Amino acid sequence: MDIATIAGLLTGVILILLAIVSGSPITTFIHIPSMMITIGGATAAAFISYPLKTMLGVVAIIKKTVLCKTPSPIDLIGKVVKYAEKARKEGMLALEDESETEEDEFLRLGLRLAVDGTDPQLLQKIMDNDIMALQRRHEVGIGVMQSLGTFAPAFGMIGTLVGLVQMLSNMSSPEGIGAGMAVALLTTFYGAFMANVFFLPLAGKLKHRSQEELMLRDLIVEGITSIQTGDSPRVVEEKLKSFLAPRERELIGKKDAA
Amino acid sequence: MDIATIAGLLTGVILILLAIVSGSPITTFIHIPSMMITIGGATAAAFISYPLKTMLGVVAIIKKTVLCKTPSPIDLIGKVVKYAEKARKEGMLALEDESETEEDEFLRLGLRLAVDGTDPQLLQKIMDNDIMALQRRHEVGIGVMQSLGTFAPAFGMIGTLVGLVQMLSNMSSPEGIGAGMAVALLTTFYGAFMANVFFLPLAGKLKHRSQEELMLRDLIVEGITSIQTGDSPRVVEEKLKSFLAPRERELIGKKDAA
Amino acid sequence: MDIATIAGLLTGVILILLAIVSGSPITTFIHIPSMMITIGGATAAAFISYPLKTMLGVVAIIKKTVLCKTPSPIDLIGKVVKYAEKARKEGMLALEDESETEEDEFLRLGLRLAVDGTDPQLLQKIMDNDIMALQRRHEVGIGVMQSLGTFAPAFGMIGTLVGLVQMLSNMSSPEGIGAGMAVALLTTFYGAFMANVFFLPLAGKLKHRSQEELMLRDLIVEGITSIQTGDSPRVVEEKLKSFLAPRERELIGKKDAA
Amino acid sequence: MDIATIAGLLTGVILILLAIVSGSPITTFIHIPSMMITIGGATAAAFISYPLKTMLGVVAIIKKTVLCKTPSPIDLIGKVVKYAEKARKEGMLALEDESETEEDEFLRLGLRLAVDGTDPQLLQKIMDNDIMALQRRHEVGIGVMQSLGTFAPAFGMIGTLVGLVQMLSNMSSPEGIGAGMAVALLTTFYGAFMANVFFLPLAGKLKHRSQEELMLRDLIVEGITSIQTGDSPRVVEEKLKSFLAPRERELIGKKDAA
Amino acid sequence: MDIATIAGLLTGVILILLAIVSGSPITTFIHIPSMMITIGGATAAAFISYPLKTMLGVVAIIKKTVLCKTPSPIDLIGKVVKYAEKARKEGMLALEDESETEEDEFLRLGLRLAVDGTDPQLLQKIMDNDIMALQRRHEVGIGVMQSLGTFAPAFGMIGTLVGLVQMLSNMSSPEGIGAGMAVALLTTFYGAFMANVFFLPLAGKLKHRSQEELMLRDLIVEGITSIQTGDSPRVVEEKLKSFLAPRERELIGKKDAA
Repeated sequence: MDIATIAGLLTGVILILLAIVSGSPITTFIHIPSMMITIGGATAAAFISYPLKTMLGVVAIIKKTVLCKTPSPIDLIGKVVKYAEKARKEGMLALEDESETEEDEFLRLGLRLAVDGTDPQLLQKIMDNDIMALQRRHEVGIGVMQSLGTFAPAFGMIGTLVGLVQMLSNMSSPEGIGAGMAVALLTTFYGAFMANVFFLPLAGKLKHRSQEELMLRDLIVEGITSIQTGDSPRVVEEKLKSFLAPRERELIGKKDAA
Repeated sequence: MDIATIAGLLTGVILILLAIVSGSPITTFIHIPSMMITIGGATAAAFISYPLKTMLGVVAIIKKTVLCKTPSPIDLIGKVVKYAEKARKEGMLALEDESETEEDEFLRLGLRLAVDGTDPQLLQKIMDNDIMALQRRHEVGIGVMQSLGTFAPAFGMIGTLVGLVQMLSNMSSPEGIGAGMAVALLTTFYGAFMANVFFLPLAGKLKHRSQEELMLRDLIVEGITSIQTGDSPRVVEEKLKSFLAPRERELIGKKDAA
Repeated sequence: MDIATIAGLLTGVILILLAIVSGSPITTFIHIPSMMITIGGATAAAFISYPLKTMLGVVAIIKKTVLCKTPSPIDLIGKVVKYAEKARKEGMLALEDESETEEDEFLRLGLRLAVDGTDPQLLQKIMDNDIMALQRRHEVGIGVMQSLGTFAPAFGMIGTLVGLVQMLSNMSSPEGIGAGMAVALLTTFYGAFMANVFFLPLAGKLKHRSQEELMLRDLIVEGITSIQTGDSPRVVEEKLKSFLAPRERELIGKKDAA
Repeated sequence: MDIATIAGLLTGVILILLAIVSGSPITTFIHIPSMMITIGGATAAAFISYPLKTMLGVVAIIKKTVLCKTPSPIDLIGKVVKYAEKARKEGMLALEDESETEEDEFLRLGLRLAVDGTDPQLLQKIMDNDIMALQRRHEVGIGVMQSLGTFAPAFGMIGTLVGLVQMLSNMSSPEGIGAGMAVALLTTFYGAFMANVFFLPLAGKLKHRSQEELMLRDLIVEGITSIQTGDSPRVVEEKLKSFLAPRERELIGKKDAA
Repeated sequence: MDIATIAGLLTGVILILLAIVSGSPITTFIHIPSMMITIGGATAAAFISYPLKTMLGVVAIIKKTVLCKTPSPIDLIGKVVKYAEKARKEGMLALEDESETEEDEFLRLGLRLAVDGTDPQLLQKIMDNDIMALQRRHEVGIGVMQSLGTFAPAFGMIGTLVGLVQMLSNMSSPEGIGAGMAVALLTTFYGAFMANVFFLPLAGKLKHRSQEELMLRDLIVEGITSIQTGDSPRVVEEKLKSFLAPRERELIGKKDAA
């Protein structure tokens, strides 16, 4: 998990904890039934929205997408250009070894297809299908987090309504009103807390990681098809560098010189 | 109905019931006129939004989409590859039997068209039209659930406004205020409950099922056109496997070996 | 007007009326100035948003779209297939009579163009332009209803704010507070009522009708171009049937047999 | 300015004024500091969102788009068909005079390009670029009005929060509470009033005018390219009439006969 | 930073400060823990949503996008037309010097590719990739500001809920209620203030600058490909002028005459 995610989560939780303990005993904010209706309800709604298998798979997608580092596009371009040079000099078949040892799963697929002499249009089609399927899987993961982020405040409000109706229909003593309102508001607090500290920011991270990974795959498809059509390594590099920000492009230059 | 849907619905209802009975007699939350204005009003608004025939058909679509299991893409790919092998060896006409006995309605249509020697472009067009028509029908079903999920809280608010105006314009005794407010809030509670436990999660499930089914149909179109253009079974498999997640692809390998 | 629309409107109005009269004299909810600010304000805002001519034309569009029955796609397919058969046997010019007597305005246009020997690409362009122009007109109608549905609650809130400020700045007697609040809330009630019983559901119906009609026109374009390129009646039927749901397709089979 | 805009603005303002004076002296609703924070704040936020030059230019765009009448498409079609006839008989160069005297700026551009013998693809590209640039300018104008319509209620709420905090932190006498709340709510009222009577309806009008103007330009491009490719005047008219509603098409027929 | 941004920010802050000090000592609105939970929480959520590197890079993007003036399209067109004239007379290679000294980074890239004799399709592809990569980077910057603008009010609400629960669960003395509410509302005020004075307007500015810059790059691509295909300088100018508003086009004419 990258440091920003951990730091962000800890900071968010600690700031709210500080605000709580500075003004009241922490026990005021712990109410198990309220937690159950908010978190349990949101999870139940998500389980209705998505099939069981998907819900179980989502944890894996989230873990993988958040924990795994997306490889640096600069390194990736370096690798692809190296392959282009080898293919130029020794022919496509010279990449057979690399098509088995290459670490990046998607680049390996591309190399294998190219080495097998797959028709360029077919290769493009297979790799595009692959990208679209990945995008679909990512969107499911993002969708689950977003629907948790929508349902959590909704069930928070449902809990508060239940609490308000109970309090209002039973106003024997005016002293109890304050305490009843406090408990009723706790579910709204839990819902807003879960949604804004966990679900929505994590949905944002997933979305961002997904875009990064899809961009890298577009870059790989561009590189493989460029190698396959016999572009010179310099043209391959030029094409791929256009995916980078100007500042990053200079880093490639420096690396080359070094 | 898959287990997640049942479990989710039950959990959602039970959690809220527990929250209710833990603090008050359940009768406090049962108020037939409030239910009628919320659920009746939302249903009435949906009946204005969609034609009668569509509303009646939606129940069928929902049932079918939620209950029917979408076939596993892995099995489907296996079947298509088998057809590709047969067509390779014995010619397209050898698939005549399968074009009548194949269980999957859409795959059967594709086989029949291919066996009939339909022009590839026409076949693609017919199957694409079919997919678009299915998508349209699904979108109507999703739209009905979503509009119920929007109208339910809206009519809940209308009911609460009616109750508030009645209570405020008739404040003879201060004791009655609490009880009046409690009843007024019930419609808001019903609206939020119906929307977040039933309508919106079911709309989510419909959407997800629809995407799954459309993906399978894209896969079938890809497979049939690939068979028709005479691709080797290995190319067909390669093309179709690109629709799967990497982990699922390995399952195909294992099945083949087994 | 189809039955669902009438039934829905009546049910919605009656349910809310029942809720009102069950708890207070109906006069409590009748306040002409509040009605004027809500309905008048929303209408005024819509008149600023859309030109005078459009606002006047919208009533006609709504009437036509809601009242006119969209023809059954099954009947339409039957007609087009019959034309295809006649054109196959006796040539395109044999459809000259039909190109003047055909009831459906858009199909008549298509037949006339085809009989006139219009170039296929030009025919496609003219008919596509026509569809796009229809879509534009429908979207204006939908837009007017949706903006009424957005402005009505907004002016309801403006009215309530006016009432609250008046009540708060003039709190001589505590008894008046309740009555003042009740009147202030009436505009919010009117806004929510108008939006959710009339404007938004009617916008939904318009949208749905528009989609249906556009689908039928796509079907007609498909049919005419198919006839023009000389497809066999069976191919024409196959192409057009792909627009239908599986259940509807069987109805065509039955009709043919009957 | 068309009558609907003036009538709508006046009606909206008068209805709200009536509601105000019917229940309280108008001075209750005039509070200069509250106006400054709402209108000033929203304007300030818009000035941060858009560059200075754009903000100044927007007034001109709004004036022009709201005041200028968009020409009738029927007249426009008549003109284009007349040009098509002349070009058919006497050749493209015969339109040289019209390419300088034609009133409609965009039609004049098209005629000039066609008379200059511009390559058809280049002509299409230049005119499409022009349409896209116009659309971009319109969208900026719409965007400014919409962001004013979003920021006005937001600054209204900020003003109300400031007023509430001041009132709550200084509750010496209970009598002051009502008056304090009344003043605090005024900013929310101003924000809702400005947004729903001015900014959002005007944004709607701009959007609608923009769509009308873009449609006319699409029609002109269609007409010019049709003339350039040598279509007969009848084909030109047929193509252009497909942009109209059926009722408008009949008007062209009548005009021709007259 | 252009004057509008500074003026807008100052005006917004000063207006709200005036509203504050006119009714209460400024210290009433300064509460460090409330600031920490609102601003700290929103920043933490943004750090979870975006990777560390991106968050650090965003400040640079914002600075660059807001501070740097986008060059005038009129000057740019002048430059491109001058290059077109030179290339027409002396051949593409005559632009070698300009391809190194040209100030505009993207135009320099285009010139260099054209001078190197890059294949037109490849040149178009590289430049389009470059534009898409820039758009991606801009969207990340806009996304960060927008998510800060969404999370700030959300954490404001969380802070207010914490304050309300604390106040309600500890209502020993009625005098404390007002002060407690005032402090609880402060976080909502901070959230609305940060979002509407800083984050959302700055997101709007970034969006607008991004559109301007992307438009300029589209213009440059159009110009370079037009030069490369050997268009006459007049045609190049005609093509590029279609990106401008009519009023700006006249400015080019005047400059030429001067």
